[in-house]
Amino acid sequence: MRMSELSERSGVSVPSVKFYLREGLLPAGERTSANQATYAASHVERLRLIRALIEVGGLSVSAVRAVLAAVDATDMPLTWAFGVAQRAVSRPPAPPAAAGGAGFEVLQGLLRDQGWEVDDANPGLPVAAGAVDAYVRLGHDNLLGALPAYARAASIIAEADLAAVAAAQDRPGMVQSVVVGTVLGDALLAGLRRLAQEDASRRLFPAPPAAPDSKDALC
Amino acid sequence: MRMSELSERSGVSVPSVKFYLREGLLPAGERTSANQATYAASHVERLRLIRALIEVGGLSVSAVRAVLAAVDATDMPLTWAFGVAQRAVSRPPAPPAAAGGAGFEVLQGLLRDQGWEVDDANPGLPVAAGAVDAYVRLGHDNLLGALPAYARAASIIAEADLAAVAAAQDRPGMVQSVVVGTVLGDALLAGLRRLAQEDASRRLFPAPPAAPDSKDALC
Repeated sequence: MRMSELSERSGVSVPSVKFYLREGLLPAGERTSANQATYAASHVERLRLIRALIEVGGLSVSAVRAVLAAVDATDMPLTWAFGVAQRAVSRPPAPPAAAGGAGFEVLQGLLRDQGWEVDDANPGLPVAAGAVDAYVRLGHDNLLGALPAYARAASIIAEADLAAVAAAQDRPGMVQSVVVGTVLGDALLAGLRRLAQEDASRRLFPAPPAAPDSKDALC
Repeated sequence: MRMSELSERSGVSVPSVKFYLREGLLPAGERTSANQATYAASHVERLRLIRALIEVGGLSVSAVRAVLAAVDATDMPLTWAFGVAQRAVSRPPAPPAAAGGAGFEVLQGLLRDQGWEVDDANPGLPVAAGAVDAYVRLGHDNLLGALPAYARAASIIAEADLAAVAAAQDRPGMVQSVVVGTVLGDALLAGLRRLAQEDASRRLFPAPPAAPDSKDALC
């Protein structure tokens, strides 16, 4: 297909397609003349992934480049691909862990209790430790009581993540699933947490019954 | 205490303190002369909360104002305070749910299966539905297999959230816990998810053993 059709089918404007070509995120098409090239269905797929990573995942162009390299390096162990996806996903509300703060120590204790084997460079460590630091700094140590339950929930989530990845049809599909699931999964979980909180708070803290005449007032 | 000590104890610069006073986020101090006022320990606490919401939670000044109003309205049912906190927390990587997309339908089915009672206006609904839409659009329907496990995990998290809130000493403390826990909890969970994923991927997808001579090459 020509550039115009590629733009139409992918929903990405022609100037953006040209930008991704220049940046090397999108492989060049097959040249048919000095000014023309032809593109394949794989270009449409790649453009959809690029837009999802940028618009949905909030990734920078250089982060997208790193993720796409992991998608294309089909000889990379999946454990590494997880690491690349994890490092690429910037989490804007990530509080920085305080040097000498309680967070890292609390997290190390949690990892020991759970028997989790993780690298010191796992990007989740400073994010989680920073949140713990902020709880303590704000005087909300009571919220740390939820940590063991959070860890149990995180295990359930991670097992489901891995099973979903393993269900992908082929190896490139598995690596893509890791990337997409890491980026979108945080939003999905944050949304489900709010839904579950509302349901739980309705049961635990029922709203006071409406005053008897409040319904009449609406008539 | 005077303004300079308030700044020092809270770690917030004098110009920022003045800005928060002007914006009405921080209550005025007790006036001791035409140019001077004195501040209490409650001002230090309030400043720490403001900074946490802005720097850690990424909230705008108007979102902080809404959250602080919920903290101060001690006659507000906790269910409502949850709603205010939930709506205030902007989640930048939240994908917009597509009109007519499959996301809302998938979510409604999930809510029915879980027996969750939630308002149509719950802010988690478009966030979660948007993530589902994006999975489908990108051809990663396989990741939807993780949804029931995610919902189970979200229930565990929400129950722990509510229990931690209920353990706060007094009503204002409970409302503050809702706000802080909603804002920081997403980051904590995202961090723990990455740690649990690494542990699970090490067990499920072990890295290939190093080549026999690779160790020697390092000597």
